[in-house]
Amino acid sequence: LVLMKSTSYFVFLDILLIISCILQTCVSKPYDTFSNGDQCSEILPLSIKEEIHSYQEDVDNILKAVGPNGLYQGYTWNALANFIDTFGPRQAGTENLEKSIDYMGNLLKKEKFSRVYYETVKVPKWSRGYEYCNMVYPRKAKLNVLGLGMSIGTPSAGIVAQAIVVSSFEELKNVSDQVEGKIVVFNENYTDYSTSVVYRRDSAAEAAKYGALATLIRSITPFSINSPHTGVLHYDPNVAMIPSAAITVEDAHMLHRMFKRGEKIIIQLYMEASQGGMTTSRNTIAELKGISLPDEKVIVSGHLDSWDVGVGAMDDGGGAFISWNALALLNKLGLKSKRTLAAILWTGEEVGLRGAFAYYNKHQHEAPKINILLESDMGTFKPLGLSFAGNNQSFCIVKEVLSLLSPIGADSLIRDSEPGPDIAVWSETNVPLAGLLNDNGRYFWYHHSNGDTMDVEDPVNLDQGTAVFAAVSYVLGNLESMLPR
Amino acid sequence: LVLMKSTSYFVFLDILLIISCILQTCVSKPYDTFSNGDQCSEILPLSIKEEIHSYQEDVDNILKAVGPNGLYQGYTWNALANFIDTFGPRQAGTENLEKSIDYMGNLLKKEKFSRVYYETVKVPKWSRGYEYCNMVYPRKAKLNVLGLGMSIGTPSAGIVAQAIVVSSFEELKNVSDQVEGKIVVFNENYTDYSTSVVYRRDSAAEAAKYGALATLIRSITPFSINSPHTGVLHYDPNVAMIPSAAITVEDAHMLHRMFKRGEKIIIQLYMEASQGGMTTSRNTIAELKGISLPDEKVIVSGHLDSWDVGVGAMDDGGGAFISWNALALLNKLGLKSKRTLAAILWTGEEVGLRGAFAYYNKHQHEAPKINILLESDMGTFKPLGLSFAGNNQSFCIVKEVLSLLSPIGADSLIRDSEPGPDIAVWSETNVPLAGLLNDNGRYFWYHHSNGDTMDVEDPVNLDQGTAVFAAVSYVLGNLESMLPR
Repeated sequence: LVLMKSTSYFVFLDILLIISCILQTCVSKPYDTFSNGDQCSEILPLSIKEEIHSYQEDVDNILKAVGPNGLYQGYTWNALANFIDTFGPRQAGTENLEKSIDYMGNLLKKEKFSRVYYETVKVPKWSRGYEYCNMVYPRKAKLNVLGLGMSIGTPSAGIVAQAIVVSSFEELKNVSDQVEGKIVVFNENYTDYSTSVVYRRDSAAEAAKYGALATLIRSITPFSINSPHTGVLHYDPNVAMIPSAAITVEDAHMLHRMFKRGEKIIIQLYMEASQGGMTTSRNTIAELKGISLPDEKVIVSGHLDSWDVGVGAMDDGGGAFISWNALALLNKLGLKSKRTLAAILWTGEEVGLRGAFAYYNKHQHEAPKINILLESDMGTFKPLGLSFAGNNQSFCIVKEVLSLLSPIGADSLIRDSEPGPDIAVWSETNVPLAGLLNDNGRYFWYHHSNGDTMDVEDPVNLDQGTAVFAAVSYVLGNLESMLPR
Repeated sequence: LVLMKSTSYFVFLDILLIISCILQTCVSKPYDTFSNGDQCSEILPLSIKEEIHSYQEDVDNILKAVGPNGLYQGYTWNALANFIDTFGPRQAGTENLEKSIDYMGNLLKKEKFSRVYYETVKVPKWSRGYEYCNMVYPRKAKLNVLGLGMSIGTPSAGIVAQAIVVSSFEELKNVSDQVEGKIVVFNENYTDYSTSVVYRRDSAAEAAKYGALATLIRSITPFSINSPHTGVLHYDPNVAMIPSAAITVEDAHMLHRMFKRGEKIIIQLYMEASQGGMTTSRNTIAELKGISLPDEKVIVSGHLDSWDVGVGAMDDGGGAFISWNALALLNKLGLKSKRTLAAILWTGEEVGLRGAFAYYNKHQHEAPKINILLESDMGTFKPLGLSFAGNNQSFCIVKEVLSLLSPIGADSLIRDSEPGPDIAVWSETNVPLAGLLNDNGRYFWYHHSNGDTMDVEDPVNLDQGTAVFAAVSYVLGNLESMLPR
């Protein structure tokens, strides 16, 4: 991925989409020669195993601290609720995101990290503005709508046009001679996120080829209570840019039924969405300096920015907060690490992994000294372990480390070539990467929608997620050897 | 219930609320001397048992007709989808409801019922108008809101006031000296519908006692994706009327968290809601005349009116459509009944069981000739059998009838003193009553919200629900004796 050095936004979008497959099963990389731990006993030296298990007591203390009646039980959830309630949504390019980053910097200093600092990142400033969508014929009905991220707006009078409803790009091609001057509604099936999201990404570009005025896509989710889901789209530079928005699954179904019955449907779409150029945001970095190997690092991370709808408690408040809290917890418990432990709170993830690329561009020479990069951006539901990209030896070491977390059932390790969107930009360096594996079957119910609130987050799950990142950081921060790569 | 002869709207509301307990476990009436069929073998004569089982082949034909590759497979769902997509929401007092009633009359005539007619019903005309709610301090956030049915609106400038958040009426009392001039937010727990709905009903009256300007209640649902749920409220004639609206579970939680932290919260509420006096609507009645006992009746029913949000596919499009389709199916299959079979599509259910009371007032003298009244208004998810109010002998007969439906697992019979809101007004007459028992654990996820759409309805479930009402109507329309009462 990082061979693509172009700073083109569209390349970023492609990367974003490729990386989005982390949320689903992905084709494994060649180094994934085995994917469960059955063969680990053959290649894991007893000495390393013993070394890992010497940390069981410390890990037990971590679990105790966040467990029932533990001194820090509920700490992550409370801190997250304070943050989320104070700032609400934190869209890249907004003053509100920057205020929330200031808040985090101050909070992390209070949490007594040895070093807290920012690194600037250029982010695009896209603004939704006012928007609405109505079916105006054969009957008037409000369609709940969310303009897609980076979409252009409609003309100021809005667009009123006949609708044509299709379920795939193939079907669009078959009726391409009927598309001109119409609003194309995509009622694509939801199979899995990475498969279906191409309709969010490409519907505008595909329909514009045939002269469509706008596209409406069925929200990319397996379940809806009339809730639209946003996310970025991708314009084709060779085709006209047209506005695109997500409607609800329910409305997409309804429009398709009506269309199949031969009913004429007229839709009114109004969107004030606009690009506002580039502006500056910041990655937030908090470090606990390593006591004997300070140049070597273990990094945990999540992103602070969110979409402008909902409040980004799940995507990715939870991930960001278990990350820094994991290290803060170690600090409070006096559990010191030989290597430096760093928490990075990425910015601009939702608009093209902006913080991740900026950090990579600045720090890629440090790759040999980064023991592992962790990220949580697939939900912080009940933690099950980690997803992992790295060689077999590292896989077995990390799996053994996770066995220390078997008291909370978070001892699973699965292969995933891109375990987190922001850390996946490091793939080509062969730095081992890991993401929080969790029981996230409902993740897309809330993703990029007004349903992404504190109600999705659970105090016990956040405590356990914090413990997983704390334990893994602590042990990998202290093992005699870096993870092999 | 019917001893209350007052036509006062508030009495109706009370009745409505009492009846709403049908949706949950209710205190049983004295005649509920046993609640499962274990004792039926003692009191059910073998002759009746044999008579019932002589209809197994006919019931099998009903099931076959709506089963896989059956001639009428999917018929109910398709008819419902046509209806719902054509009319959308059908609020009492609107021209749209009356148009949908016209449509149903025409449709039922086409379905070759022997008689299709209307009976007029007075219904109140309440209109929501434009409405919105914002938290304006300490940060600006849109609160998704639905004004409660029958609420008054705000002054035209809206209400901007400090919020006080409580979780119960008891807590309200404890802080009653701090309520004046404020908006009271109720973050009541959801235990079950009938317990929690008192906050929707009474919050305005309770808070107005202490000088509140408006109330916001947490929506009455166990699950939310930022979706508010409406429903009627109840004003106390001795207390000022203040506007009241439902906010989402998520926002109620957030406001309560902020309030508990001591944050000052200012909320802006704007509601154009208004009463428009009374107007005329209609119950729709379709009959298949009985071949030998035409004066005796079996009645199946559901209500056609809905709230103004969502499209009323679940509440109660599904119930209304399995009712008339059950009889239409019998007609198509040539399965004739000795007794007259009638489908009633009630109007004005959501605004105080208006159609049900009108019908009862006009027809209560027919009680001795009504064999049983059925209703489906608790969802048309996977049918499990019936809920039932009647004496033990009737209970055992109906249970035996349901055994004919064991091929689809719809053979459960449970006691329920009020198995449907519209039919429960007949309770004092001792006419046996039954409601569709179904796997409705998610009913309140969608209830009275924009989530009540065709997506909640499933073709197979509707086919099976249709079959249950068809089979029960057919057998009870033909048994030698009326159900004992």
